[in-house]
Amino acid sequence: MTVHPQTTRESLSKERLRLWLKLLKTSRSIEDEVRRRLRRHHDWTLPRFDVMSALSRAPDGLKMGEISRMLKVSGGNITGIVDKLTEEGLALRVAIPGDRRAQLVRLTDKGQEMFARHSADHEAWIDDILGGLDADDLGGMIARLDRLTETLLAEDKDAD
Amino acid sequence: MTVHPQTTRESLSKERLRLWLKLLKTSRSIEDEVRRRLRRHHDWTLPRFDVMSALSRAPDGLKMGEISRMLKVSGGNITGIVDKLTEEGLALRVAIPGDRRAQLVRLTDKGQEMFARHSADHEAWIDDILGGLDADDLGGMIARLDRLTETLLAEDKDAD
Repeated sequence: MTVHPQTTRESLSKERLRLWLKLLKTSRSIEDEVRRRLRRHHDWTLPRFDVMSALSRAPDGLKMGEISRMLKVSGGNITGIVDKLTEEGLALRVAIPGDRRAQLVRLTDKGQEMFARHSADHEAWIDDILGGLDADDLGGMIARLDRLTETLLAEDKDAD
Repeated sequence: MTVHPQTTRESLSKERLRLWLKLLKTSRSIEDEVRRRLRRHHDWTLPRFDVMSALSRAPDGLKMGEISRMLKVSGGNITGIVDKLTEEGLALRVAIPGDRRAQLVRLTDKGQEMFARHSADHEAWIDDILGGLDADDLGGMIARLDRLTETLLAEDKDAD
């Protein structure tokens, strides 16, 4: 028998705060673990993985500003990452016809292949890290996170 | 009737990846919303709130390095925040007896009072943002996040 003291309004609020702190802590811990494995197995940083991931989903290429916005990272950092990817032959910059000032960045074939391999590793790591959760756990959590996202989208609308 | 294709090993792995991406996205969205409200209502930054929060739980004070480690933020940023808190009379630096090089930072009474008020607002915002989740949802998610944390702690041990 479990007693549920959280049925009062005040304790529900405390439980929501507790969940939020756990949500934040867990997602940071998982991110740290992924960061460690990327470094150890591939000598990659997480921002590099994220840039490659964004580029891999845009076969026609992305503008620098688009990458920054997608990853919410400042332009300066993205430039450094793209410079290194270009040096290593994983990405290239192509001119946009009719726009002399902007360029598109896209992955080379070598970049696509390498990202496909690292991305498979990434999926396997997540499968390992989240291995304690079965199909029911996953379905239940995904449904609740979706409900949270709906509330957040409604907040955004209020703010406009 | 719902079909559960995720019973195969491969689709379970895809579901875990899907959960992870949602977990990351949701916690970033909530953090952004808290950041916006802190800025709008109190003209505070989130790192300032986090530093005040750490100090509020340490009545005897914290060394600068301890604050950095707790918040995983670089020392330079923490110094700037503590300088401003000190200027505003919310925190003060005190010498450590027997240690001429180190100082402890702690909140003033004014700092404690102000943080108590902002912290109550923070709890109310989280209650609002997570309002779509009832006691059962909260209990279920907390239990699953705890299970995830156990896996992560076991990983850490493997890495040592």
